[in-house]
Amino acid sequence: MRLRNKPWAKDFMGEHPDVLILEEEGKNINWKETFGNEQPIHVEVGTGKGQFVIGMALANPDINYIGVEHFDNVIVSALEKVIEADKPSNLRLIRGNGANLEQLFGAGELDRVYLNFSDPWPKTRHAKRRLTHESFLARYENVLKAKGEIHFKTDNRKLFEYSLVSMSTYGMQLLDVSLDLHAEMPEDNIMTEYEEKFSAKGQPIYRLEAVYNN
Amino acid sequence: MRLRNKPWAKDFMGEHPDVLILEEEGKNINWKETFGNEQPIHVEVGTGKGQFVIGMALANPDINYIGVEHFDNVIVSALEKVIEADKPSNLRLIRGNGANLEQLFGAGELDRVYLNFSDPWPKTRHAKRRLTHESFLARYENVLKAKGEIHFKTDNRKLFEYSLVSMSTYGMQLLDVSLDLHAEMPEDNIMTEYEEKFSAKGQPIYRLEAVYNN
Repeated sequence: MRLRNKPWAKDFMGEHPDVLILEEEGKNINWKETFGNEQPIHVEVGTGKGQFVIGMALANPDINYIGVEHFDNVIVSALEKVIEADKPSNLRLIRGNGANLEQLFGAGELDRVYLNFSDPWPKTRHAKRRLTHESFLARYENVLKAKGEIHFKTDNRKLFEYSLVSMSTYGMQLLDVSLDLHAEMPEDNIMTEYEEKFSAKGQPIYRLEAVYNN
Repeated sequence: MRLRNKPWAKDFMGEHPDVLILEEEGKNINWKETFGNEQPIHVEVGTGKGQFVIGMALANPDINYIGVEHFDNVIVSALEKVIEADKPSNLRLIRGNGANLEQLFGAGELDRVYLNFSDPWPKTRHAKRRLTHESFLARYENVLKAKGEIHFKTDNRKLFEYSLVSMSTYGMQLLDVSLDLHAEMPEDNIMTEYEEKFSAKGQPIYRLEAVYNN
């Protein structure tokens, strides 16, 4: 994604602490108190401009959603959309790094992790940065409940191939796989910005659901 | 595959007992004696017209290959090709049913099972007939050594999706997955008749290697 410099980003982010939490502040948060209920918590790691996590929050009011995004210049677009959507009470954003999930959430605090159109990091020497690398799978496992799930979508064939093997090798079990999601579009599919763009070009969208075997 | 009636099939098959074994005769075979060595044994279930298993046998003389095919009118085409190839000493054909593997091979006798362009049996009520259904995975496991492998290729997206989930649910581990085999064609890939046909049409060929976790 091209990152436009947005000099106003920091100030804008600071004006909406009820929605957007900075990683350094998120470490002491009690999420049940923050949401004011005991609903399951689903986290999207790398939430980008937010279309997916906002759509999910609006479609599923009985689930709490948290979108985590590293880049200021990207997450402010998500913040703008959250404000347009009247700040759904079951949605928060965190400006932070997916590698630090264990500092943001306690053991077993989450029910599901979403990964959507994550950076493929195509070079082998960058494999450790892929969000489905075993080091990330271990982090997700630590903050997920037993039998927690990862739901993953991408247009990138090689990242998907890698992820199937990585998750299987980690000991996770595949629950569902689609190699052309839009061929039989599920009614409840919420599209990300990337998904709209790539599927419009006729590229297949790959999707999987996997569960930890713990 | 369209099955032409070949009234001469039975006689022709009977003329080459050094290559083609009928299932009912295969039950008492000592495969090490038959091949005259201790080489690993790889079996293709549903060997069709034989191009794959013959190509593999010629390319890998240090491995013994057995092609199993149910239909007389199909396996005679494989038999013709084996004769044309001067009957490689590391290759045999069995006219038999993949469901009866445990009658043809002893526990742990095989090193690898190949499945290529198996019938997709698209209707849910026929799922049990798919060669990657759990009942077949159990049969393969019984005749394979510990940590035995299945290598599977198909052009059928839905069969491949099903098979990824079926193998994972069975407890197998994915070692390698390709969702477009011909995009980076491996040098040692031997094409089946179907593979040549479908890839010429531009359809992606799916491939996986999976190992039993036993």
